[in-house]
Amino acid sequence: MSAPPPVIVLVRPQLGQNIGKAARAMLNFGLTELRLVAPRDGWPNPDAGPAASGADALLDSAAVFETTVEAIADCSLVFASTVRRRDLVMPVIDPEAMAREIHSTEGRTAILFGPERSGLETEDVALANAIVTVPINPEFGSLNLAQAVILLAYEWSRGTSLNQPTAKELEPPAAMTELEGLIGQLESSLDQVGYFFPPDRVEATKLTLRTILTKPRWSTREIQALRGVVRALAENRRRG
Amino acid sequence: MSAPPPVIVLVRPQLGQNIGKAARAMLNFGLTELRLVAPRDGWPNPDAGPAASGADALLDSAAVFETTVEAIADCSLVFASTVRRRDLVMPVIDPEAMAREIHSTEGRTAILFGPERSGLETEDVALANAIVTVPINPEFGSLNLAQAVILLAYEWSRGTSLNQPTAKELEPPAAMTELEGLIGQLESSLDQVGYFFPPDRVEATKLTLRTILTKPRWSTREIQALRGVVRALAENRRRG
Repeated sequence: MSAPPPVIVLVRPQLGQNIGKAARAMLNFGLTELRLVAPRDGWPNPDAGPAASGADALLDSAAVFETTVEAIADCSLVFASTVRRRDLVMPVIDPEAMAREIHSTEGRTAILFGPERSGLETEDVALANAIVTVPINPEFGSLNLAQAVILLAYEWSRGTSLNQPTAKELEPPAAMTELEGLIGQLESSLDQVGYFFPPDRVEATKLTLRTILTKPRWSTREIQALRGVVRALAENRRRG
Repeated sequence: MSAPPPVIVLVRPQLGQNIGKAARAMLNFGLTELRLVAPRDGWPNPDAGPAASGADALLDSAAVFETTVEAIADCSLVFASTVRRRDLVMPVIDPEAMAREIHSTEGRTAILFGPERSGLETEDVALANAIVTVPINPEFGSLNLAQAVILLAYEWSRGTSLNQPTAKELEPPAAMTELEGLIGQLESSLDQVGYFFPPDRVEATKLTLRTILTKPRWSTREIQALRGVVRALAENRRRG
C-alpha cells in the first residue's frame, strides 16, 4: 500500500482559467483531489472548464473551503509551494525531497499554492510543515501557478512506480485539526495570563509559536499529552 | 566543466504565444538557446514577446532555420520529445535518462519539439538519437508545448548548479543542555501543580514528555521561546 497522492490546495486563486490549467496539470500526473480556498470569483467558475482540457471531472469534484485551516484539516503533512520566507523559520526543501516525504508518509498530504499575483500569505505558509521551492534560474524566476503545480506533480509521480518500502513512523503524525486544537488551547491559556504583549507583537508571536509546534509532526498521543500539560499549567491558575 | 545546456528546437511551431511561453519555460531553468524551424507565422512574431514574460532576450537571439536538419547541424546528440512511435524502431527514454545523457556528453545537444497540434513528423523524429517521453497518466495525457519544454528543462537542471541543495540555512538544533534546561523547567513547573500523579507513573510520564520534546530538534531560539511560554503559564500561579 503506497501513500495516497497529495491533495492540491489552491489558496484564493484568482482566475478560473488558471484553476482549470492547474487541474489539467494535476491529472497528467495522476493527482485527482483539488481543493479551493475562497476562490476570488466564486465556484464553479465558467472559465475553468475550457482551460482544463478534459480534466473536468476533477473540477466537478473540487471541494471549496473558507479557510486554509479547514482545507487541510484531515492532512498530517503539508507543504507550502513558495520561495523562502524571511519572516518564517521553516525548513525549505526541493521537490525531490518533498516527493520522498509524501511517499513515506502514511496519512494524507497536501501542497498549498497561493494566489497567482501575490503567492501565499505568511499565515498560510505557517500552517505547513515545510516550504517546497523549485530551484530555478536566480536571474529569471517566473513560474506560473499551473507550471508550479505540474512540476511538483511530476516530481511526485516519479516515485509512484518505484514502490519502495516506506520507512514507517512508529506513530503516524496527527491530523492538522488535532494540532490546531493544541495551538488554540495554548493561545487561549497564554492569553489569560497576559503572555501576548505588547499588542502589536501578538500576531508575530503567535506565528512563531505555530511554526515551533508544527515542526515536530507529533502523533495523536503526543498532542494529547501536551494538551494535558498545558491544561495542568493553566488550570492551576484558577485553583491558586 | 559541465556539458553545455541543450538547445531547444521548436519544429514548425504554430502560435507565437506558445513560442513565448516555451522561452519563458526554458529560461526558468537556465536554457537560453532557442531555435525555430519554419515557424508557421514567420519570425519575429509579435505575440511571442508578451507571452515570454521577460524572457525576451532569448527570443531576440532565437535562430530560424528552414529545416530540422539544418537546425541540429552542430549537435552531436539529439532527442525528439514525443510519444512512442509505432513507425520507428528507436530507443524511448524518460526525461531522467535524457538528462543523464546530456550531462555526460561533450558536444552540443538538442531537444526537438513538434507543432502544437500534431507533434513531430516521422521524418523529424528519425533525425534524433532517441525519443524522450514524459511518463504521464495513461488515461489523461495532455501536455502542451510549454509544459513539455518546462518538464524537460527542469529535469536537465536537476543535474546543474541550480539544483544545489536549496540551502537549508535553518537554525541549527540547540545543544542538548539547552533542551535539558527546557525539560527541567517544565518538569519542575508541572511538579508544582501536581501534574505527576500517581507516583508510580512519574518516571514513565517524564520519559514520555522527554521523547515528545526531543523529537523536534528545536533551535536555541525556539527553546527560549518555549521556556518563555512555560514561565508565563507557571508564574501566573504565583501571581494568582
